[in-house]
Amino acid sequence: MTVTLHVCTTCKAGRPVPEGQATPGQRLYHALRQAGAPDGVRIVPAECLSACDHGCNIALTGPGRWSYVYRGLDPDHHVADILSGVAAYAATPDGLVPWRERPVIFRKQSLARIPPMES
Amino acid sequence: MTVTLHVCTTCKAGRPVPEGQATPGQRLYHALRQAGAPDGVRIVPAECLSACDHGCNIALTGPGRWSYVYRGLDPDHHVADILSGVAAYAATPDGLVPWRERPVIFRKQSLARIPPMES
Repeated sequence: MTVTLHVCTTCKAGRPVPEGQATPGQRLYHALRQAGAPDGVRIVPAECLSACDHGCNIALTGPGRWSYVYRGLDPDHHVADILSGVAAYAATPDGLVPWRERPVIFRKQSLARIPPMES
Repeated sequence: MTVTLHVCTTCKAGRPVPEGQATPGQRLYHALRQAGAPDGVRIVPAECLSACDHGCNIALTGPGRWSYVYRGLDPDHHVADILSGVAAYAATPDGLVPWRERPVIFRKQSLARIPPMES
């Protein structure tokens, strides 16, 4: 079953973005795409996750799984950790990755989670 | 199609809760249940929405819809507004209620939103 990594591409991470330059959210999205999605994961751009005070933000969703929103992500430093965390999420049936197996950014930068729709 | 209102019942809203007393999250859940779910809405308790700094918190989900997390809700003052906001959400096919038709608490106290799983 495929899980989705939503990347907020409108995010300016609280800083002014000069005209014509990519937003931090767009840079994060492209860096993740370039690094390559893990098996069973699709990476899609999202227009605003309504968490603008906390950006850059991503969300993880998947059938039967808890959804997670993570905040404060840095396109220059967090791409590898995001992808390893998403791979671990995709490998679970319910989205609940054991705490110690989550990358530190997922332990410390969770903004919210939502139970599976079916629960 | 039924939508779900998840209510975080573990939430202490940042305050100590004397032993044997209901948490603010439990009080919010029971007040919402007592007031009654709108048509097409089920109200379910959730164990921690991982947004403890912002409680009390709720989440709205539904098939084909954007999911929303709202924060800072008060069991003594916000029950009617939550239920009217959830009814408006349930009446849409995609969860996107026009801005002016959202209760003020939903306009001002959104913590995050997540695109529909199908998008």
